[in-house]
Parts: sequence; structure tokens; C-alpha cells
Amino acid sequence: MGNETYSVDIEILDTTLRDGAQGQGISFSVQDKLSVVRALDELGVAWIEAGNPGSNPKDAEFFRLAKNLTLTHARLCAFGSTRKKGLAPGDDPYLKSLLHADTETVVIFGKTWDLHIEKVLEVSLEENTAMIAETVGFLKEQGRTVLYDAEHFFDGWKDNPGYALKTVKAALEAGADRIVLCDTNGGSFPAVISEGVKAVTALGQAGIHAHNDADMASACTVAAVQAGCRHVQGTLLGFGERCGNAALAALIPSLEIKLKLRCLPRGNLTRLSELSRRVAEIANVPVQDNMPYIGNYAFSHKAGMHADAILKERRSFEHIDPFSVGNDRHLLMSEVGGRSAIAERARKIDPSITKDHPVTAALAAKLKTLEAEGWQFEGADGSFELLVRRELGKYKPLFKIDAYRVVSEHPGGDAIACCYAWAKVLVDGQHEIAAAEGHGPVNALDCALRKALNPFFTNFGIEKVRLSDYKVRVIDGKDATAAKVRVLIESTDGTNTWSTVGVSQDIIDASRAALVDALEYKLIGVIERRFKGLF
Amino acid sequence: MGNETYSVDIEILDTTLRDGAQGQGISFSVQDKLSVVRALDELGVAWIEAGNPGSNPKDAEFFRLAKNLTLTHARLCAFGSTRKKGLAPGDDPYLKSLLHADTETVVIFGKTWDLHIEKVLEVSLEENTAMIAETVGFLKEQGRTVLYDAEHFFDGWKDNPGYALKTVKAALEAGADRIVLCDTNGGSFPAVISEGVKAVTALGQAGIHAHNDADMASACTVAAVQAGCRHVQGTLLGFGERCGNAALAALIPSLEIKLKLRCLPRGNLTRLSELSRRVAEIANVPVQDNMPYIGNYAFSHKAGMHADAILKERRSFEHIDPFSVGNDRHLLMSEVGGRSAIAERARKIDPSITKDHPVTAALAAKLKTLEAEGWQFEGADGSFELLVRRELGKYKPLFKIDAYRVVSEHPGGDAIACCYAWAKVLVDGQHEIAAAEGHGPVNALDCALRKALNPFFTNFGIEKVRLSDYKVRVIDGKDATAAKVRVLIESTDGTNTWSTVGVSQDIIDASRAALVDALEYKLIGVIERRFKGLF
Repeated sequence: MGNETYSVDIEILDTTLRDGAQGQGISFSVQDKLSVVRALDELGVAWIEAGNPGSNPKDAEFFRLAKNLTLTHARLCAFGSTRKKGLAPGDDPYLKSLLHADTETVVIFGKTWDLHIEKVLEVSLEENTAMIAETVGFLKEQGRTVLYDAEHFFDGWKDNPGYALKTVKAALEAGADRIVLCDTNGGSFPAVISEGVKAVTALGQAGIHAHNDADMASACTVAAVQAGCRHVQGTLLGFGERCGNAALAALIPSLEIKLKLRCLPRGNLTRLSELSRRVAEIANVPVQDNMPYIGNYAFSHKAGMHADAILKERRSFEHIDPFSVGNDRHLLMSEVGGRSAIAERARKIDPSITKDHPVTAALAAKLKTLEAEGWQFEGADGSFELLVRRELGKYKPLFKIDAYRVVSEHPGGDAIACCYAWAKVLVDGQHEIAAAEGHGPVNALDCALRKALNPFFTNFGIEKVRLSDYKVRVIDGKDATAAKVRVLIESTDGTNTWSTVGVSQDIIDASRAALVDALEYKLIGVIERRFKGLF
Repeated sequence: MGNETYSVDIEILDTTLRDGAQGQGISFSVQDKLSVVRALDELGVAWIEAGNPGSNPKDAEFFRLAKNLTLTHARLCAFGSTRKKGLAPGDDPYLKSLLHADTETVVIFGKTWDLHIEKVLEVSLEENTAMIAETVGFLKEQGRTVLYDAEHFFDGWKDNPGYALKTVKAALEAGADRIVLCDTNGGSFPAVISEGVKAVTALGQAGIHAHNDADMASACTVAAVQAGCRHVQGTLLGFGERCGNAALAALIPSLEIKLKLRCLPRGNLTRLSELSRRVAEIANVPVQDNMPYIGNYAFSHKAGMHADAILKERRSFEHIDPFSVGNDRHLLMSEVGGRSAIAERARKIDPSITKDHPVTAALAAKLKTLEAEGWQFEGADGSFELLVRRELGKYKPLFKIDAYRVVSEHPGGDAIACCYAWAKVLVDGQHEIAAAEGHGPVNALDCALRKALNPFFTNFGIEKVRLSDYKVRVIDGKDATAAKVRVLIESTDGTNTWSTVGVSQDIIDASRAALVDALEYKLIGVIERRFKGLF
């Protein structure tokens, strides 16, 4: 069972990119999806349900690009529904798209609940069973591993247990490799989940897919595991329709630490906080501070009495060791990965740096201060590398913006709106000033800045650098237009991609900071390659 | 049992003002506390644990003022700990403050866990039992109703069940009116809670106080109730140390609707969403969108298939009727939403609109065009409502921005950076121009715009409108600074919350569009309420 490359007690399927993407406010570009896949593979989940190629052309494009990914732990799956009523599976265009995604594993959902089948799908119970059996059989004939999601299993099982089990049997007899019992509406209590799972495990192996509409997705999943499930579905941060799916980051520690059932490759649990934050950054959604296990507040103690007690006896107010999930008790983001994580990243610039190196301590302190001001380096490798260089003394500013102005002009009447900027830079004692128009204020500033730098850095490739993503996050939700914003920029030169960050009350100035880092990062790379032998 | 004025199956104690206030980021003024008490009393909880007068002088002041409150349903309680070691209860200054709060009911917490007693409190197990018995006895002699909180009950019971039960017996024999079993560290699973509760209910009535560190506070509370608890503690929105307390707003509907156990006066459940939002406003903390039962997304349906199914059969994707908790269904206007979803939303403005109404077709076409240009209305109810009004002919622009300019100025040297804006508006044939500085360009424009509108709309409440969230998304990841951006704004006037959207290549102009919609939406609401009879 599970992936060949490692063995676990529970196989985890993450559906952030499919069910998670159906959540309100969640939207991934194709590049975002590839980044999420990499993070989930690093974490070591068994399967990644990455999209619905039949209903979403963007997902089809993703699966085309995903073929070039080399994954260590995870297998990708494409998701789709049983064949349409009255069609042969081979003639169903959605099933064709599903096969076209060319994944070794496919996930197929079918209907379990008679209410749904008769009132929504409007087919007979017999036709529904045939749709399940024929679709699974067809996909098995095509050589795929087939996971069968029994949608609304628990609602169906409560209303008509005989028919619900019949649909499961149909999938099993047609060769489904896993039967996954879904609490699609998320309203079930653990006791019902437990009974339903036991009824199915009498027939064969079952998995669980829970939603959080009654605030019980974690408890329902644990109940299912205790009743015999060994396949668990969820989304890392709980993204998903309505109240979301079971949040794997809040669940896997319960399974691993409390039930002693391994879900991830050995040692990977300590990376949970860091990788969850990376996925949250990509989705441009903050990790909820009170999130169990990985939230900023999960191990913070405000009452003095609690803090004192913790110092006498850790267990007095901590249900687990925060470091076991890569969290920390007074945690700012800087300490999520701990000093060893900081050292690990600093080694990219100076291989001699260890966890106990003074620079590591200095960096940890620096990060703490910056993060208190709203900076965040989890999703900004480029800016973090510049920070490390500064701390190592391996940095000099390659240029300085002496002054700039950005104007967004909307003159009204027939006159055309426009944005323009000028920037005055200082390079090696020489000034240069340039102005540019742009499609928006950030674009105008970006253009003016490059124009001013161009005389000094001809053929350094900065003309190739373009922004591939631009994200803005309000750091403090109150009085939002006056709050600080954090701008995250992803840049590419066509070969490499790097990300940088800027923070300010002024969105333009936060963008300026991230743009400057992006260009410096590029320039340093070129200079190192060209001139390293000279030093 | 419970309050004399109404009868319930489960008595609810809300501790937002005590345990909730120990949560990070939560802080109440004395006036805030009085407002929260009024809201909780309107909701109809049995008890309100309102503070710790011994450890917090602000709480002592609160209890002094609270004597003048007239409450319909709830009783106030003051909270404190057992007497200090070696002191007689009557000599303990903290117990004196507790009595001084002059509440009919007091809550006393004592230690259950031998680890805690020996390593943190550093007293013998015998002295601890004496501290519990003498404190409860003393408070009963003073004529108070005494609720005894057994701190760390479940951890203690796992390690040393005999001693844990001994502490409970000591409280019961001294006359405690309720024994409340606390999962203080929040790491227990429902099965352990259930066993612990059964052990205590063999001795007498028990209550439950759960924390959410393992994402199971709701499930643990339901398990405790199923094992015999009839007293439930929590905080309305889940505020509390670390990951928070059991969130009553996510829990009471489970107890009332699913277990048929009444917690609130008859009919009050439908006020849950409104009163939870009021408490969140007082705390200045947003209600999490994905919060079970009362969250904005709790009954949102983004996938077209789900939206269509809901309209055929509500139960297909709703575990309860959203109106039963005062929430509402949201069919998202995403590219996947169908006409039936559009019609359902348009009916809020004109009840005669059906799926086949020509306006529905026109709106669907309009949405398609706008979405192709990057607009997105799924998270922008306010803008969508304006769009429907335009299509229905029930719209006239209340103001027009004739021209505006925003400048972000970074002069360099010692000169201070600043942002300023001017805006010229046209209202009913009259022009007005105003300028303002701001903390950033969007804030500057927001301020200038309100200043210009103010002479025309005095006392329309636009001065109360503030942005509660501001999100930016790049619509096309390529050439990001020149790409279009979509700005989503959430506004609030303290009572209602609405969201609006703007799209442009210029982030300032996209913000302008969303700001204009936000103000128009507010103005239309006020005008409708005030002047509807005239038309």
C-alpha cells in the first residue's frame, strides 16, 4: 500500500489544488500550482490531487507542464466524475480529458445518496450504479490506479444504507484501488463516521474525506482512522468549499504524535510549519494565528501564570512539544524553522555557516525585529539571501535610489489617464535620472528605474528581468488603507525565478523595496558568475 | 437547574471576557466589556464569566459598573483561584477581591494534576485538596453559588485518576454547585473526554470546558454532552489562550439542531450570526470567513455544479438551513455559476426575477464580459448588487469623480516622503474639490474623496465607513507590473460589512473603483431606508 519509495501507516492525499481551489478566495495560477506541488512533495504526502482537467482548461495546461516535474514522494492524481448518464465511458469528453492529463492515478467521484441521485442528478439508482462500475472499469482497463470518492457517503448511508453500500461494492468489484468515504456536506459527527467506516471496512479498505461544517473535520478523520481507515484526504491549510476540508496541518500531528501512526517520511513532521506557511504564501492567504499546531499563537502564552508554569514544566501548558511540528513557543515566523533552518539557508552563500555560528544568532535576532515590523521572508528567498549577505559582510549596495516620484493622473474629460514616474539613482558616485510612463504606478517606477540603471549595467541582463507575479497583503486588517502592506514580487529572467519582499504604509514604496531587491539579486548573480575569480 | 427565567437542556457559560481575554490580540476596555455582556444576555446564555477581579484592577472596576446592568437571561460570575497555600481563605486578598465583585455566582479553579501540583504549585497533594475544600466551603458560607473548575482534569485523570477524582470529591463535599472538567491544554481526544466525564458523573453533575489545541474543542464538548454533561463553557467566537476555547457559535447549533438539546431561549438561535458579529466588532477582530455555521463562507457555493444542485435540493450541499442560525446562502458569481444562482441573488433587489427573466440573461452575459476583463464578483457582493441595479434600471450614479491625482513623493535626502491626493467630484450638478494627505496613496485618495463628498452627504454615515480589508491580486501573472490588478475591498460601518471590487492596470485606479462602489453601496442603503416611501 502507498508509495513504493517509503512506508507509512496512513497514506495522505492532499487536495489543496482541487477541492481547496473550490474554496472562496482561493485561486491558483498554473505556476502557483507547480509551486504547491513542490512544497507538498517536500512535505512527503503520498498523493497530490492536482485538478479537474475536464472542467477547467487551466488544469489541463497544468498537467501538461507537470509531466516535467520530478517528485520524490508524491504521486499526482487528476480528478473527475463518473461518466455522464447514457454515454459510454469511452465517449465521455470529460473522461477523455481526464485520461489526457496522463497521470498514473485518477480519482473518480460518484453519487451515494439516493436523494441526490434522484433529485439532482435525475437518474435511476440502477443507472447510477452502472455509471460507477463502468467508469471505474474503463479507467482500470486504461491501466490507471483508481481512487473512488463516494460523495455524500455518510448522508446516503444514514438515509438508505443498503443502496449506499451497493455503490461502494460496485466500485470495488469494478477494481477501484481505494474507496474514499466523503462527508461532503461536512455536517456529520464522529460517531456516525465511525459506524459508516466500519460498515465499509467489512467489504474492503476505506479512506476518509471530511469537511468542517460542524467544526469536526479533524475529529471525524481521527474517528475514521480509529475505525480502520488508512487513507486520509484533506487540504494542508483547510482550504475548501464553505468551511473547508479537514486541515492536514492540524490533523497530521494528531495522527503522528498522539496516535503514533506515521503519515510522512520519517523526520518530515518538523517541516510542517514551514511548508504550510510556504503554501499559504503562494495562495496569498494568511495562516490563521490560532490554527492548531502550526499557528503563530498555538504555543504562545499571554497569562503570566501560564508563562511562569511553562518555564518550570513544559507540559504544564503545552499538549505537545512545539518543535516536533517545527513551531516554537514564542514564535515569530523567523523561528519557525529554527536556527538550523536559518543556517541551512545561509550555507548557500557561505558553506562554513553552522547552527552555532554567531552569524546565525545575529540573523535570528535580525529576523525577529524585521518580522515584528511586518516583514516576512518565508516566500522571499531573494530578499532573504541579500539579508544573509549583509550579515556576512558580503554585500555592497550596487545602486541607490536617491529620490523618486510616482504620479497616477486622472485628468477627467477627454484627457487620457496616465501614470508616470521619475527616479534618480546613484551608482559608483555617478548620478543618473530617468523618467518613464507605465501601465500603472508600479510599472512606471519599474521602467524608470531600469532606464536609469541601464547606462551602468549594459548587458547585465536586467532588461530580461520581468515580474512574473505580484502579491499584496495588508498586514493589519484594521483601517486597511492606512495599514502597512507587504508586497511580494516574483521575478524571472526566463531561466531562474526569485522572490523579494517590501513593507511600507505606501504600496508604491513597498513595491520599490521589492523591485530594488529583485534587481540587486539579479545583478549579484551575474557579477558572481563573471568576476568571481578576481577576488 | 439553570436560570429561573427560562429552561434549557444545556446551560451555557460564556467566558469571552475572562478566558477569551487571555487570548493573544484580544483586549477589552471596561465599556467594551459592558457591551459584550449586553450582547451575550440578548443571545441568552445562562452565565457570563466576566473577569478575574483579583488579578486585574480593570475587572474590579467592571464589576462595580456591572451592578447597574439589568440582565434578562444571564447571570454574571467573577472568577478566581483557590486560596494561596498556607493562608486561611478569609485572609487571602484575592478571595477578598472576588467577594468584593459582589456577584451571586463565583467560579473557582483548582488543581487536579499531580504533575502541576508538585512541580508548578509546589505543594503536597493533601494541601491542594484542602485548598479546594476550604475555598469552596468559605464561598458557600458567604452565600454564593459556586462553580468549581477542575483545571487540567483530563491530564490529571490520565496520570493519576484516583487523585483527580479526590479533588472533585473535595469540591463536591464542600458544596460546589457545579463541577466543570477542564481540558486546559486542549490536547485531549473526544474518547478520553467521554471516559473522564463518565467517571465524574457517577459522583455528581459535571460540566465541560474544552480548548482547541488539537482542533477538537467542538467534538470534545459534544462527546462530553453525550456522556452526560449539561453545563458547557466556551467563548462565543473561540477567543482564548493559544488556539482558543470551544467556540460557542460553532457549537451551539450542533447541540440545538443536531442533538436537539436547547441551549438558548426559544427562537434566539436565529440571532447567533448577528450577535456573534457584534461581539467580534467590539473585540475588533474579524469573524473568520470559514467559521462553521456563522462564517461568511459557511454557506457559499463556488462550483457551478454545487450551486445548481442547491437550487434543486437545498440539502444536497447544506448540512443545515443557513437561516436557522441567522446566516444566509451565498451563490458565488464566479465563471462557473449558473443562471439560477444569478437569479437567486437578483431576487434580493427585485423579488419577481426568475431564472428565465430577461434581466437574468442580460446579467449572465454582462458577467461573462466583465469576468473576461478580469472582474470577479464572487467576493464582491456590494459591487454585484450595484451591477444588478444598473441592469434593472434601479440605479443612478450618486456622485461622479470628474478628475483626481495621486502622488507618492520620495524626495530623498532629509526631506520626508509623503502621499497626497486631490479629487474633484460632481454631485447633482455641483462640483466640489478636496485634497488630503494619507499614509499611502489609497488612503490619501480615500480621504480626499470623502472630504469632497461630505458637503453633499452630511449625516449619511459615510464618515463611519472604514475599510476592514484590502486585497490585491494580479490577474495575469506574466509581465506583472504591467498586468491588470484586481482590488477587493471589504468595508464596514460597524454594523454591516460589504465588499466591492475594482480592476485596472493602475492599482490606484482599481482601488478608486472599489472605493466608489463601497461608498455608493452605503449611500443607497441609507437612502432606501430614509426615503423609500416617497417613490
